[in-house]
Amino acid sequence: MNKLLIVGTVAFDAIETPFGKTDKILGGAATYIGLSASNFNNVNSAIVSVVGDDFPQEYLDILSARNIDLTGLETVKGGKTFFWSGKYHNDMNSRDTLDTQLNVLENFNPVVPEAYKDADVVMLGNLHPLVQLGVLEQMTKKPKLVVLDTMNFWMDCALAELKQVITKVDVITINDEEARQLSGEYSLVKAARVIAAMGPKYVVIKKGEHGALLFHEDNAFFAPALPLEDVFDPTGAGDTFAGGFTGHIASTGNISFKNMKNAIIHGSNLASFCVEKFGTERMASLSKDEVSSRLKQFKELTQFDIEL
Amino acid sequence: MNKLLIVGTVAFDAIETPFGKTDKILGGAATYIGLSASNFNNVNSAIVSVVGDDFPQEYLDILSARNIDLTGLETVKGGKTFFWSGKYHNDMNSRDTLDTQLNVLENFNPVVPEAYKDADVVMLGNLHPLVQLGVLEQMTKKPKLVVLDTMNFWMDCALAELKQVITKVDVITINDEEARQLSGEYSLVKAARVIAAMGPKYVVIKKGEHGALLFHEDNAFFAPALPLEDVFDPTGAGDTFAGGFTGHIASTGNISFKNMKNAIIHGSNLASFCVEKFGTERMASLSKDEVSSRLKQFKELTQFDIEL
Repeated sequence: MNKLLIVGTVAFDAIETPFGKTDKILGGAATYIGLSASNFNNVNSAIVSVVGDDFPQEYLDILSARNIDLTGLETVKGGKTFFWSGKYHNDMNSRDTLDTQLNVLENFNPVVPEAYKDADVVMLGNLHPLVQLGVLEQMTKKPKLVVLDTMNFWMDCALAELKQVITKVDVITINDEEARQLSGEYSLVKAARVIAAMGPKYVVIKKGEHGALLFHEDNAFFAPALPLEDVFDPTGAGDTFAGGFTGHIASTGNISFKNMKNAIIHGSNLASFCVEKFGTERMASLSKDEVSSRLKQFKELTQFDIEL
Repeated sequence: MNKLLIVGTVAFDAIETPFGKTDKILGGAATYIGLSASNFNNVNSAIVSVVGDDFPQEYLDILSARNIDLTGLETVKGGKTFFWSGKYHNDMNSRDTLDTQLNVLENFNPVVPEAYKDADVVMLGNLHPLVQLGVLEQMTKKPKLVVLDTMNFWMDCALAELKQVITKVDVITINDEEARQLSGEYSLVKAARVIAAMGPKYVVIKKGEHGALLFHEDNAFFAPALPLEDVFDPTGAGDTFAGGFTGHIASTGNISFKNMKNAIIHGSNLASFCVEKFGTERMASLSKDEVSSRLKQFKELTQFDIEL
């Protein structure tokens, strides 16, 4: 069994989309990453995160039911769990944050469980870059692959620290606007080149409904988002993508570019489920049959047969 | 040899993009379609269109040099050629039309050359739906495939006529916004289903830099746009795509869904050249080696190897 270490938020989300509105439900980057990665064989996953004691046992049970190790999930007595609330615009491609309450995240000091200090793959979900760095420093063995997710917020507020963690990772995943902001280049080809020069050998640019690009040296690979009848809630799609990407890499233990292409497809495939229902609902009950049947759709969507 | 009949504008364009500005240069839907289709073996192409006698011989020579039959290109004595002028915004995804002078297009009565009344493939480039209908009525043999391109302008001004021609075609190519306008559906999956019910068995939705989708019954196929360092001028990319699509179908004489996937890839491949320089410059001098080498890039960009 290979080990996947996941760092990120475990949170309450309140979401509004053109299709409806939720109260506080289970959310957080590590939650989506963990649920997504739980679809792969031959990999043990653990989450490093923090919640308050207002966090319900039934949400923890959802994660445990998918065999996610929660030893590294700290519960702060008397603390309140991180809360995010957002409202999506009609096109679902943009959203307004209505409320962010950091709560227990404010003084979060991540502790990597002993058993995961030699993890094969480390997925640094979106968090303060210093927290991400703090996790890497606890590793006793160099992981095969370290993947970093981040967002524009840290580019605005903690750019120096972010650049420091960027030098220490193999793969960075960011969205198109963030890639442009971080690189100062509009063209994504140029942006990826600038970002790769900061450290990561692999740059993944997420374009939401327009798919994802993987850049490595002079090579590029593209995976579309599966065209869906309706997207109900895009929350967590990027994290689900990252969970599929790292879950596949950890499962195979293979970090070749060829296998990363497959990992991008697995990530896109899993993300296509995430957006079909609100929050984690779809991901929490996903079956292996559903995953492989949709993977077949992905092949039909993208594979062609031109002889050269 | 199979025959491809192309109907559309042959025009003067004046273009402004963030990279520069042109005076009146060679443009028009039929021009781009014809240049693009000229990259395929085993196909003879002819353009049905109209110009004024202000249209320079050197532009006609560009088309003739690529073996495009101009018997059906009428020159109106004392008439002025159709002129379009546009300015692209910084993101290149949207543009403002600065000027449109219909000129000889206003009274255009298309005449299909005798030798092309039995064409295998008919590409109806963007024009008034009644002109497109007029061409179909002149065919003496049912073509293997009729492909229609159109735009929002005709949905606003000539919807009834447009719907009439839509009932008579096998494939429609429109962009995402137009698909939404024509169908009244935001989801492209639903939009394609509504449009297919109007007549065309195949619906191609062009998303510019975000690629193109082909829908047929419950099947979908997607081709990305090749990620480029810079897009200098998107003018003609959609027509170049259509020329590659119909050129490949005419060349192979095969209208299976599997071969249409390949046609979509050929169209996307050729469109990736079109945008690299202003106007028709890149397309007019494209070599077979360049085309097949970039097709290889397309395979690397999209093909993966997941066993199911």
